[in-house]
Amino acid sequence: MKFLSIEDISKANERVASLVHKTPIFTSSLLNQWMGHELYFKAECMQKIGAFKARGACNTVAWLLENNEKPKHIVANSSGNHAQAVAWAASRFGIPSTIFMPAYSSKVKIQATKSYGAEVILCETRAVVDEKVKLASEEEGTCWIPPFNHDQVIAGQGTAAYEAIEEVGEVDGVFAPCGGGGLLSGTWVASRGLAPKASVIGAEPLNANDAAQSLRMNSIQKLQSVPDTLADGAMTIAVGDLTFEYLKQLDDFYEIEESRIRYWTQWLTHLLKVRVEPTSAMAMEAAFRWLSKQTSKKRALVILSGGNIDQETSLKIWKDNCLDEVPRL
Amino acid sequence: MKFLSIEDISKANERVASLVHKTPIFTSSLLNQWMGHELYFKAECMQKIGAFKARGACNTVAWLLENNEKPKHIVANSSGNHAQAVAWAASRFGIPSTIFMPAYSSKVKIQATKSYGAEVILCETRAVVDEKVKLASEEEGTCWIPPFNHDQVIAGQGTAAYEAIEEVGEVDGVFAPCGGGGLLSGTWVASRGLAPKASVIGAEPLNANDAAQSLRMNSIQKLQSVPDTLADGAMTIAVGDLTFEYLKQLDDFYEIEESRIRYWTQWLTHLLKVRVEPTSAMAMEAAFRWLSKQTSKKRALVILSGGNIDQETSLKIWKDNCLDEVPRL
Repeated sequence: MKFLSIEDISKANERVASLVHKTPIFTSSLLNQWMGHELYFKAECMQKIGAFKARGACNTVAWLLENNEKPKHIVANSSGNHAQAVAWAASRFGIPSTIFMPAYSSKVKIQATKSYGAEVILCETRAVVDEKVKLASEEEGTCWIPPFNHDQVIAGQGTAAYEAIEEVGEVDGVFAPCGGGGLLSGTWVASRGLAPKASVIGAEPLNANDAAQSLRMNSIQKLQSVPDTLADGAMTIAVGDLTFEYLKQLDDFYEIEESRIRYWTQWLTHLLKVRVEPTSAMAMEAAFRWLSKQTSKKRALVILSGGNIDQETSLKIWKDNCLDEVPRL
Repeated sequence: MKFLSIEDISKANERVASLVHKTPIFTSSLLNQWMGHELYFKAECMQKIGAFKARGACNTVAWLLENNEKPKHIVANSSGNHAQAVAWAASRFGIPSTIFMPAYSSKVKIQATKSYGAEVILCETRAVVDEKVKLASEEEGTCWIPPFNHDQVIAGQGTAAYEAIEEVGEVDGVFAPCGGGGLLSGTWVASRGLAPKASVIGAEPLNANDAAQSLRMNSIQKLQSVPDTLADGAMTIAVGDLTFEYLKQLDDFYEIEESRIRYWTQWLTHLLKVRVEPTSAMAMEAAFRWLSKQTSKKRALVILSGGNIDQETSLKIWKDNCLDEVPRL
């Protein structure tokens, strides 16, 4: 397999720059004081549709057009951010889209996907969703945009770290969460190109550690059941064959306990005043662990992947008080 | 009484511009689509110390220095954002500060106030707090910065709307919440100066409606007991004699039910991806009611006052699901 290059990310960046938000980078002087390091947070929760996924979907459609492969119809299957991202990107380019979603998806995500202009087809189970999207994709002129295992999706997701490092300058560590591995793969390519000395480190829930297990076994492992984790953006059953190759290149990979996911979700929300998905909070815990081993002052870039959280998850996040215990190294 | 002029706000803005954040203005394309109007949100939750209060405290200290009245010591009494604001502003100018706080203040606010460099003195009751700060302020060279009833505090708070209108341009309505009335007073002065045709409208909890009652009775009314409201930034017992005069000038003033405070706190958090204090959400409900009466497309500026929320309040915000009911006019 041939890895993407920094030129691929740079080209993706040119494609999406005028369409997606250049998201802000936030810092917390209190957190930096407590940590003794400099932390930079790339707030992809402020991205179009509320998550980095807008980048990959947008880049993929733009790349198809660039290659004179304008689809008549775009389809995707998702219960979450990818659904909204594809609906938004398709409509941005004036292409009709159909999104297949499980009927148990949150109303607010179904509503948003429709508002971005997609036809939404609700299916009873995830299996039916996957079957129907496959069938639909066989229609002539139809393009199926997958959530992570695709070069142009990976290149698009990499533009978040690309933008961030261009703005922040040299960093010593870059941290991102792992669901299917698309964000982390693109982040690795961007970091290797723009900050070659930086460690690039991933994080996934201990309760949904298929990627960590895959790395240990050196072959892709699948979760056997729906995992019990607050980090609903990292519940993907397995990484892809493309993204797995990137994950093998990482400098480290941490498995995060639920209590630490809740802890950082509360603290980052409190300190940065942005909506932080529990999935994003895992990247902070990875940074925390890595920083705790450093002997000199470091600059760490944490990719906050998104901020779409339903009410039920919000309630779970805040059920115990973590704010009495100040984060200190 | 002489009202502040737009020049007073402009001068305050010059004083604080390099010290406070120029906070971002957020919009939501979904919300604008649903409302049929253009809404601009000034995100003071992203301000230093997480609330607009940093502006008033900073302006007051800078104004003292400008008038060669550098205090040796600054004191304040507060259980909330004003405590942190004064601690931060004093330390920014290298002046020692002592903040008197009720012992029941949230640990996270006490911790933050200390981290900004203040000495914190915890007192058993609010009455003791108020007594001690008064005593302390009688020491020679000591300056007591009040939370709202002070020209320079009002001028400082007005810089939020000033900055926002300079950035957004002409607006038809400006909306801010009312606690002691400092933010609303400054907002009125800034709006009259920069957007003279705009309606300026305030909002307070129906459960803590001392300002609305005062306006109806044409004299300052005091709450008789601690009010039961989610909007903890608007629990002030009474407005001040200065701020009351400004409140009388407003184009309208709404009393907001708890269910609507919760509704907009959830929706603004969800759509804008920022931490929205319930107090701020009241300004959105005011905008919603005002917009519902308009017959042509309007541009509304909503001042989101802050984003400091403890865990207990977070839990109350999310206990029911408001996200299934899409906001529509």
